[in-house]
Amino acid sequence: MDASADLLLRLEIDGCNAEQAAALDQRRFGDWPAFYTADGRYTVQARENFERGLPLALIDLSGQGMMKDRVYGITQTIYHQPYYTRHVVGVARLLGHDQGVTASEANYAVFRTMPAGVSEVFQVGRYLDEWVRVDGRLLLRSRRCIYDSELVLNSLIYPV
Amino acid sequence: MDASADLLLRLEIDGCNAEQAAALDQRRFGDWPAFYTADGRYTVQARENFERGLPLALIDLSGQGMMKDRVYGITQTIYHQPYYTRHVVGVARLLGHDQGVTASEANYAVFRTMPAGVSEVFQVGRYLDEWVRVDGRLLLRSRRCIYDSELVLNSLIYPV
Amino acid sequence: MDASADLLLRLEIDGCNAEQAAALDQRRFGDWPAFYTADGRYTVQARENFERGLPLALIDLSGQGMMKDRVYGITQTIYHQPYYTRHVVGVARLLGHDQGVTASEANYAVFRTMPAGVSEVFQVGRYLDEWVRVDGRLLLRSRRCIYDSELVLNSLIYPV
Repeated sequence: MDASADLLLRLEIDGCNAEQAAALDQRRFGDWPAFYTADGRYTVQARENFERGLPLALIDLSGQGMMKDRVYGITQTIYHQPYYTRHVVGVARLLGHDQGVTASEANYAVFRTMPAGVSEVFQVGRYLDEWVRVDGRLLLRSRRCIYDSELVLNSLIYPV
Repeated sequence: MDASADLLLRLEIDGCNAEQAAALDQRRFGDWPAFYTADGRYTVQARENFERGLPLALIDLSGQGMMKDRVYGITQTIYHQPYYTRHVVGVARLLGHDQGVTASEANYAVFRTMPAGVSEVFQVGRYLDEWVRVDGRLLLRSRRCIYDSELVLNSLIYPV
Repeated sequence: MDASADLLLRLEIDGCNAEQAAALDQRRFGDWPAFYTADGRYTVQARENFERGLPLALIDLSGQGMMKDRVYGITQTIYHQPYYTRHVVGVARLLGHDQGVTASEANYAVFRTMPAGVSEVFQVGRYLDEWVRVDGRLLLRSRRCIYDSELVLNSLIYPV
């Protein structure tokens, strides 16, 4: 790929990141699994574990089926205090292409607002992503949300 | 419009968002109304009211005249503790085109720094915007700042 | 330069900003001086001092040699509590071109996470940058990090 193809791809990834963030922030959780391939993987893991190569992750979903199950849990069964989220995602960096898979990375900050509460920093970290093109659309084959802090996470309910 | 025209428009909107944020953060309030059409509307509304379709808004300015009046109030008459703002705005999403009007959305985080204070999260939310092109330049016909939290807002002085 | 050349340059600067942020956040401090020209300047200065034209800066490094020395200090000699940083950088604004130098500006938010601590707003401000092209690559001839708050900065160890 040449430089201008890479640039277009980066801009497309920025757009996909914004779309997914908007779906989550607007609580359209039912739309969320469609950002992934049928066998896509979604994990949320502490930076420390990630950097040490340890497998432990807070959330580890394999395939849209598990994602839909999670969404069902969030919206129908888990007893929890609802909260608003707001994502601000930085510009993506392309990390490489290999056999139709594009790897990228983007920093994120998620802010949380509890009912009648102030907005506060909830989680910051980076998305480490693998994209494939299916029927012309970029989908995530894998998203790893690698977050900087291990605190407050027993209250993490929604995807990041 | 085709995909590449949409992409260029998105990038232009990102640029306009950055320009307006810079004008506010640098306290060039006199420049602020010029980001809007003569009859442009600027509102700041709680997410809860917005989602319920309720009209109540914290700020609701119709036209550059009211905006200039607000700026006059901010800079000349309102007694308030000044503070610095800093905007970090996410990539815009195009929502559609209709009869020369482009709708878009972008997440924002505004940080506030009081004199001799620390920087803190002041307000997070999304801009819901309608753009028109006037003399070659994109202007806002409408910006709705829909914020996640209702707290601390009696101290909101400057446009968001 | 025409509009589309300016747009491409802005996107390239956005990419460079993301690369430098990633190097710092991933603690690849040894890679950091290479984002600057051999005689590049890096300063971190309070907004109040900057706006009053006062010279006092918290950090003022002239040339890659001083930057490497700083990195050596950070990684080898300064006794300090390590912390994670996470940058979220807004879209760059081009401020002008002059004799091969491009000036730009971008808002930033840096979040800090102490070991076993929560993530919090560490510093917000703007980068005021001067770029030159060397062997096809954009390098910083000057970066001024102008931060909004003067507090908590005795604990600023890593480049912003």
